[in-house]
Amino acid sequence: MNSQDRLHYEDLEEGTIIQLGQHTITKDEIISFAKEFDPLPFHLDEEVAKKSLLGGLASSGWQTAGITLRMLVDAFLGNVASKGGLGFENLKWKKPLMKGDTLTGTVTLSSLRLSKSHPEKAVMIFEFDMRNQKNQQVMTMSLANLVAVRHPKKTEGASA
Amino acid sequence: MNSQDRLHYEDLEEGTIIQLGQHTITKDEIISFAKEFDPLPFHLDEEVAKKSLLGGLASSGWQTAGITLRMLVDAFLGNVASKGGLGFENLKWKKPLMKGDTLTGTVTLSSLRLSKSHPEKAVMIFEFDMRNQKNQQVMTMSLANLVAVRHPKKTEGASA
Repeated sequence: MNSQDRLHYEDLEEGTIIQLGQHTITKDEIISFAKEFDPLPFHLDEEVAKKSLLGGLASSGWQTAGITLRMLVDAFLGNVASKGGLGFENLKWKKPLMKGDTLTGTVTLSSLRLSKSHPEKAVMIFEFDMRNQKNQQVMTMSLANLVAVRHPKKTEGASA
Repeated sequence: MNSQDRLHYEDLEEGTIIQLGQHTITKDEIISFAKEFDPLPFHLDEEVAKKSLLGGLASSGWQTAGITLRMLVDAFLGNVASKGGLGFENLKWKKPLMKGDTLTGTVTLSSLRLSKSHPEKAVMIFEFDMRNQKNQQVMTMSLANLVAVRHPKKTEGASA
Protein backbone atom coordinates (compact mmCIF):
# COMPACT_ATOMS: atom_id res chain seq x y z
CA MET A 1 0.00 0.00 0.00
CA ASN A 2 1.30 3.44 -0.97
CA SER A 3 1.73 5.60 2.10
CA GLN A 4 -0.58 8.26 0.60
CA ASP A 5 -3.34 5.65 0.33
CA ARG A 6 -3.28 5.09 4.08
CA LEU A 7 -5.72 6.95 6.30
CA HIS A 8 -4.42 10.34 7.43
CA TYR A 9 -5.64 12.80 10.05
CA GLU A 10 -8.14 14.29 7.60
CA ASP A 11 -9.75 10.89 6.99
CA LEU A 12 -10.37 10.10 10.66
CA GLU A 13 -13.22 11.05 12.94
CA GLU A 14 -13.28 11.39 16.70
CA GLY A 15 -15.68 8.95 18.33
CA THR A 16 -15.19 6.17 15.77
CA ILE A 17 -15.60 2.73 17.33
CA ILE A 18 -13.44 -0.06 15.95
CA GLN A 19 -14.58 -3.66 16.38
CA LEU A 20 -11.58 -5.91 16.95
CA GLY A 21 -11.28 -9.52 15.80
CA GLN A 22 -11.01 -12.54 18.06
CA HIS A 23 -8.12 -14.56 19.36
CA THR A 24 -8.40 -17.81 21.33
CA ILE A 25 -5.31 -18.34 23.44
CA THR A 26 -3.70 -21.78 23.71
CA LYS A 27 -1.56 -23.36 26.42
CA ASP A 28 1.43 -23.41 24.03
CA GLU A 29 1.10 -19.70 23.27
CA ILE A 30 0.91 -18.83 26.97
CA ILE A 31 3.99 -20.86 27.88
CA SER A 32 6.00 -19.77 24.85
CA PHE A 33 5.42 -16.04 25.52
CA ALA A 34 6.05 -16.46 29.26
CA LYS A 35 9.37 -18.21 28.62
CA GLU A 36 10.58 -15.22 26.63
CA PHE A 37 9.15 -12.27 28.55
CA ASP A 38 7.44 -13.22 31.82
CA PRO A 39 8.94 -16.48 33.18
CA LEU A 40 7.02 -16.65 36.45
CA PRO A 41 5.96 -20.09 37.69
CA PHE A 42 2.21 -19.51 37.32
CA HIS A 43 2.59 -18.65 33.62
CA LEU A 44 4.84 -21.63 32.88
CA ASP A 45 3.44 -24.63 34.72
CA GLU A 46 -0.19 -25.70 34.66
CA GLU A 47 0.00 -27.47 38.05
CA VAL A 48 1.51 -24.43 39.77
CA ALA A 49 -1.03 -22.23 38.00
CA LYS A 50 -3.95 -24.26 39.36
CA LYS A 51 -2.78 -23.65 42.93
CA SER A 52 -2.13 -19.93 42.33
CA LEU A 53 -4.43 -16.95 42.72
CA LEU A 54 -5.32 -17.30 39.04
CA GLY A 55 -6.74 -20.81 39.49
CA GLY A 56 -5.31 -22.08 36.22
CA LEU A 57 -2.98 -21.30 33.36
CA ALA A 58 -3.42 -17.66 32.29
CA SER A 59 -1.57 -15.48 29.82
CA SER A 60 0.93 -12.89 30.98
CA GLY A 61 -0.89 -9.56 31.07
CA TRP A 62 1.75 -8.33 28.65
CA GLN A 63 0.80 -11.06 26.21
CA THR A 64 -2.83 -9.95 26.45
CA ALA A 65 -1.62 -6.42 25.67
CA GLY A 66 0.47 -7.66 22.72
CA ILE A 67 -2.42 -9.64 21.23
CA THR A 68 -4.63 -6.57 21.66
CA LEU A 69 -2.13 -4.40 19.81
CA ARG A 70 -2.03 -6.92 16.97
CA MET A 71 -5.83 -6.80 16.76
CA LEU A 72 -5.74 -3.02 16.48
CA VAL A 73 -3.12 -3.22 13.72
CA ASP A 74 -5.22 -5.78 11.81
CA ALA A 75 -8.51 -3.96 12.25
CA PHE A 76 -7.33 -0.36 11.86
CA LEU A 77 -3.78 0.77 12.43
CA GLY A 78 -2.41 -1.20 9.47
CA ASN A 79 -4.42 1.10 7.15
CA VAL A 80 -3.40 4.30 8.93
CA ALA A 81 -0.36 6.49 8.20
CA SER A 82 0.87 5.86 11.73
CA LYS A 83 3.94 7.72 12.91
CA GLY A 84 4.49 5.51 15.94
CA GLY A 85 3.31 5.29 19.51
CA LEU A 86 3.78 7.84 22.27
CA GLY A 87 2.80 5.71 25.23
CA PHE A 88 -0.17 4.60 27.22
CA GLU A 89 -2.07 5.26 30.39
CA ASN A 90 -4.24 3.39 32.85
CA LEU A 91 -3.58 -0.11 31.65
CA LYS A 92 -5.60 -2.31 33.99
CA TRP A 93 -5.73 -6.09 34.01
CA LYS A 94 -9.27 -6.69 35.23
CA LYS A 95 -9.45 -10.46 34.87
CA PRO A 96 -6.91 -13.05 33.72
CA LEU A 97 -7.14 -14.45 30.20
CA MET A 98 -7.22 -18.20 30.84
CA LYS A 99 -6.13 -21.01 28.55
CA GLY A 100 -8.85 -21.50 25.92
CA ASP A 101 -10.42 -18.07 26.50
CA THR A 102 -11.28 -15.95 23.47
CA LEU A 103 -10.18 -12.33 23.58
CA THR A 104 -12.07 -9.67 21.65
CA GLY A 105 -13.09 -6.06 22.21
CA THR A 106 -13.63 -2.59 20.88
CA VAL A 107 -11.44 0.46 20.56
CA THR A 108 -12.82 3.99 20.54
CA LEU A 109 -10.89 6.79 18.87
CA SER A 110 -11.70 9.05 21.79
CA SER A 111 -9.58 12.04 20.81
CA LEU A 112 -7.98 13.35 17.62
CA ARG A 113 -6.04 16.60 17.62
CA LEU A 114 -3.29 18.31 15.66
CA SER A 115 0.10 18.49 17.29
CA LYS A 116 0.86 22.03 18.41
CA SER A 117 4.57 21.79 17.76
CA HIS A 118 4.58 19.58 14.63
CA PRO A 119 1.87 20.58 12.11
CA GLU A 120 2.55 17.46 10.01
CA LYS A 121 1.44 15.21 12.85
CA ALA A 122 -1.70 14.63 14.91
CA VAL A 123 -2.30 12.69 18.11
CA MET A 124 -4.87 9.90 18.28
CA ILE A 125 -6.06 8.56 21.65
CA PHE A 126 -7.53 5.05 21.63
CA GLU A 127 -9.60 3.67 24.52
CA PHE A 128 -9.58 -0.13 24.69
CA ASP A 129 -12.32 -2.30 26.18
CA MET A 130 -11.12 -5.91 25.96
CA ARG A 131 -13.41 -8.79 26.93
CA ASN A 132 -13.50 -12.57 27.07
CA GLN A 133 -16.11 -14.89 25.51
CA LYS A 134 -18.34 -14.38 28.57
CA ASN A 135 -18.33 -10.61 27.92
CA GLN A 136 -16.30 -10.07 31.11
CA GLN A 137 -13.85 -7.19 30.98
CA VAL A 138 -10.26 -8.48 30.76
CA MET A 139 -8.21 -5.33 30.14
CA THR A 140 -8.65 -1.61 29.62
CA MET A 141 -6.09 0.96 28.54
CA SER A 142 -5.64 4.22 26.73
CA LEU A 143 -3.02 4.40 23.96
CA ALA A 144 -1.60 7.55 22.32
CA ASN A 145 -0.35 7.24 18.75
CA LEU A 146 0.82 9.71 16.09
CA VAL A 147 -0.79 9.94 12.65
CA ALA A 148 0.38 11.87 9.59
CA VAL A 149 -1.48 14.98 8.40
CA ARG A 150 -2.06 14.96 4.62
CA HIS A 151 -2.11 18.74 4.16
CA PRO A 152 -0.26 20.34 7.07
CA LYS A 153 -1.05 24.00 7.62
CA LYS A 154 1.99 26.23 7.47
CA THR A 155 2.84 27.58 10.86
CA GLU A 156 2.65 31.34 11.36
CA GLY A 157 6.39 31.50 11.64
CA ALA A 158 6.93 29.61 8.38
CA SER A 159 4.39 31.62 6.37
CA ALA A 160 5.59 34.99 7.57
CA MET B 1 12.49 -22.59 44.81
CA ASN B 2 9.95 -23.16 47.57
CA SER B 3 7.35 -20.42 47.59
CA GLN B 4 8.15 -19.61 51.24
CA ASP B 5 11.78 -18.96 50.22
CA ARG B 6 10.71 -16.19 47.88
CA LEU B 7 10.74 -12.61 49.05
CA HIS B 8 7.51 -11.54 50.72
CA TYR B 9 6.15 -8.17 51.76
CA GLU B 10 8.07 -8.31 55.06
CA ASP B 11 11.39 -8.79 53.22
CA LEU B 12 11.02 -5.75 50.96
CA GLU B 13 11.85 -2.12 51.53
CA GLU B 14 10.38 0.97 49.92
CA GLY B 15 12.98 2.94 48.00
CA THR B 16 15.03 -0.08 46.93
CA ILE B 17 16.71 0.48 43.56
CA ILE B 18 17.09 -2.55 41.31
CA GLN B 19 19.79 -2.52 38.63
CA LEU B 20 18.56 -4.33 35.53
CA GLY B 21 20.74 -6.34 33.15
CA GLN B 22 21.43 -5.49 29.52
CA HIS B 23 19.90 -6.60 26.26
CA THR B 24 21.23 -5.73 22.80
CA ILE B 25 18.45 -5.92 20.24
CA THR B 26 19.04 -7.50 16.83
CA LYS B 27 17.35 -6.96 13.48
CA ASP B 28 15.94 -10.51 13.60
CA GLU B 29 14.40 -9.97 17.03
CA ILE B 30 12.77 -6.71 15.92
CA ILE B 31 11.24 -8.24 12.79
CA SER B 32 10.17 -11.46 14.50
CA PHE B 33 8.32 -9.63 17.30
CA ALA B 34 6.77 -7.14 14.87
CA LYS B 35 5.44 -9.94 12.65
CA GLU B 36 3.58 -11.40 15.62
CA PHE B 37 2.35 -8.31 17.46
CA ASP B 38 3.04 -5.02 15.65
CA PRO B 39 3.24 -5.62 11.89
CA LEU B 40 3.66 -2.02 10.75
CA PRO B 41 5.94 -1.36 7.77
CA PHE B 42 8.59 0.57 9.72
CA HIS B 43 9.10 -2.34 12.14
CA LEU B 44 9.29 -4.96 9.36
CA ASP B 45 11.38 -3.49 6.55
CA GLU B 46 14.73 -1.81 6.99
CA GLU B 47 14.40 0.32 3.84
CA VAL B 48 10.97 1.63 4.83
CA ALA B 49 12.28 2.22 8.34
CA LYS B 50 15.17 4.36 7.06
CA LYS B 51 12.71 6.70 5.34
CA SER B 52 10.39 6.85 8.36
CA LEU B 53 10.33 9.20 11.30
CA LEU B 54 12.46 6.69 13.21
CA GLY B 55 15.32 6.92 10.69
CA GLY B 56 16.06 3.20 10.82
CA LEU B 57 14.85 -0.15 12.09
CA ALA B 58 13.56 0.21 15.65
CA SER B 59 11.81 -2.20 17.97
CA SER B 60 8.09 -1.98 18.59
CA GLY B 61 7.60 -0.03 21.80
CA TRP B 62 5.74 -3.08 23.08
CA GLN B 63 8.81 -5.20 22.49
CA THR B 64 10.86 -2.72 24.51
CA ALA B 65 8.28 -3.09 27.28
CA GLY B 66 8.40 -6.88 27.07
CA ILE B 67 12.20 -6.99 27.25
CA THR B 68 12.03 -4.63 30.22
CA LEU B 69 9.57 -6.91 32.01
CA ARG B 70 11.89 -9.88 31.41
CA MET B 71 14.78 -7.90 32.91
CA LEU B 72 12.70 -7.18 36.02
CA VAL B 73 11.79 -10.87 36.37
CA ASP B 74 15.46 -11.89 36.02
CA ALA B 75 16.79 -9.23 38.39
CA PHE B 76 14.06 -9.24 41.00
CA LEU B 77 10.54 -10.48 40.40
CA GLY B 78 11.62 -14.10 39.88
CA ASN B 79 12.67 -14.18 43.55
CA VAL B 80 9.53 -12.51 44.84
CA ALA B 81 6.28 -14.20 45.91
CA SER B 82 4.45 -12.25 43.20
CA LYS B 83 0.69 -12.55 43.01
CA GLY B 84 0.43 -11.04 39.54
CA GLY B 85 0.24 -7.61 37.96
CA LEU B 86 -2.51 -5.05 38.41
CA GLY B 87 -1.62 -2.71 35.59
CA PHE B 88 0.57 0.22 34.73
CA GLU B 89 0.52 3.94 34.30
CA ASN B 90 2.34 6.59 32.34
CA LEU B 91 4.19 4.37 29.92
CA LYS B 92 6.13 6.76 27.69
CA TRP B 93 8.32 5.86 24.75
CA LYS B 94 10.90 8.64 24.86
CA LYS B 95 13.25 7.47 22.14
CA PRO B 96 13.17 4.49 19.78
CA LEU B 97 15.33 1.45 20.54
CA MET B 98 17.25 1.03 17.28
CA LYS B 99 18.75 -2.15 15.85
CA GLY B 100 22.00 -2.83 17.73
CA ASP B 101 21.10 -0.60 20.67
CA THR B 102 21.62 -1.96 24.18
CA LEU B 103 18.76 -1.54 26.62
CA THR B 104 19.39 -1.31 30.35
CA GLY B 105 17.98 0.64 33.27
CA THR B 106 16.93 0.79 36.87
CA VAL B 107 13.69 0.13 38.69
CA THR B 108 12.79 1.80 41.97
CA LEU B 109 10.36 0.14 44.36
CA SER B 110 8.72 3.49 44.96
CA SER B 111 5.80 2.33 47.09
CA LEU B 112 4.98 -0.72 49.18
CA ARG B 113 1.73 -0.93 51.10
CA LEU B 114 -0.62 -3.56 52.50
CA SER B 115 -3.86 -4.11 50.67
CA LYS B 116 -6.78 -2.74 52.65
CA SER B 117 -9.25 -5.35 51.51
CA HIS B 118 -6.94 -8.41 51.33
CA PRO B 119 -4.57 -8.66 54.34
CA GLU B 120 -2.63 -11.49 52.69
CA LYS B 121 -1.51 -9.24 49.84
CA ALA B 122 0.46 -6.02 49.42
CA VAL B 123 0.86 -3.67 46.47
CA MET B 124 4.30 -2.84 45.05
CA ILE B 125 4.75 0.12 42.70
CA PHE B 126 7.81 0.01 40.43
CA GLU B 127 9.14 3.06 38.60
CA PHE B 128 11.16 2.20 35.49
CA ASP B 129 13.93 4.32 33.98
CA MET B 130 15.08 2.54 30.82
CA ARG B 131 18.07 3.82 28.84
CA ASN B 132 20.19 3.00 25.81
CA GLN B 133 23.98 2.60 25.67
CA LYS B 134 24.34 6.40 25.30
CA ASN B 135 22.46 6.86 28.59
CA GLN B 136 19.52 8.39 26.71
CA GLN B 137 16.12 7.69 28.20
CA VAL B 138 14.19 5.18 26.04
CA MET B 139 11.12 4.42 28.15
CA THR B 140 9.58 5.21 31.51
CA MET B 141 6.60 3.58 33.19
CA SER B 142 5.06 2.74 36.52
CA LEU B 143 3.94 -0.84 37.19
CA ALA B 144 1.69 -2.08 40.02
CA ASN B 145 2.16 -5.68 41.18
CA LEU B 146 0.85 -7.78 44.05
CA VAL B 147 3.15 -9.53 46.53
CA ALA B 148 2.26 -12.09 49.22
CA VAL B 149 2.37 -11.17 52.91
CA ARG B 150 4.15 -13.84 55.00
CA HIS B 151 2.26 -13.19 58.25
CA PRO B 152 -1.05 -11.52 57.42
CA LYS B 153 -2.66 -9.67 60.32
CA LYS B 154 -6.11 -10.90 61.12
CA THR B 155 -8.72 -8.35 60.21
CA GLU B 156 -10.82 -6.92 63.06
CA GLY B 157 -13.83 -8.78 61.78
CA ALA B 158 -12.01 -12.12 61.73
CA SER B 159 -10.48 -11.72 65.17
CA ALA B 160 -13.67 -10.57 66.83
